[in-house]
Amino acid sequence: MIDFEKAGGLVPAVAQDADTGVVLMLAWMNREAWEETVRTGRAVYYSRSRAKLWRKGEESGNVQHVREVFVDCDADTILLKVEQVGGAACHEGFQSCFFRKVAGGEVTVVGERLFDPREVYKKV
Amino acid sequence: MIDFEKAGGLVPAVAQDADTGVVLMLAWMNREAWEETVRTGRAVYYSRSRAKLWRKGEESGNVQHVREVFVDCDADTILLKVEQVGGAACHEGFQSCFFRKVAGGEVTVVGERLFDPREVYKKV
Repeated sequence: MIDFEKAGGLVPAVAQDADTGVVLMLAWMNREAWEETVRTGRAVYYSRSRAKLWRKGEESGNVQHVREVFVDCDADTILLKVEQVGGAACHEGFQSCFFRKVAGGEVTVVGERLFDPREVYKKV
Repeated sequence: MIDFEKAGGLVPAVAQDADTGVVLMLAWMNREAWEETVRTGRAVYYSRSRAKLWRKGEESGNVQHVREVFVDCDADTILLKVEQVGGAACHEGFQSCFFRKVAGGEVTVVGERLFDPREVYKKV
């Protein structure tokens, strides 16, 4: 169903807000993350930096309830339509990780910060 | 602005329909593809299978006019809001590459085919 072998065991997964259509984030899944996501209905990714499963929201509480799952034509990318608990998917406190717009060589913050990362993540 | 080094020179780029919010496809960009995309306002990707720049629509005519460009919090993923010429982003003739839905262990085609790939791509 998913071609995990093509790129060394990980495929990109895009999370989109099921109600608004906002693209919230892109993360990675290995087979284990994929199977747990499908089985539990909660988004589980694989953290490349921590080299382990990342149950989205396990620290912040901002879990993603998965409403619909799609695979692309090449079976190497996943699209999740999710309900984002807490409203913010990004660890920096924004609704979407794509809160910076690039135009004319400039980068501008366009999103609104919904929470203060220092209050949510003890390490930050 | 973009961290191309993190994952060996390529970053994922998500293309979203600027009007409807439909996630059309995910492809890859190297630095050259990124720079040409930003400079020309047309989506240019890097084809991993062909190992060269892929000017989206160069064969099918279904180019993507880029309306807005975003980068994510880690500066390693790109989001393009595009106007999809021809209505279909997928080489299989669907509006979106994510035309297959996964539910209950079954995969179902949910998109509508807008063109016949055999008529558009001579090689198919």
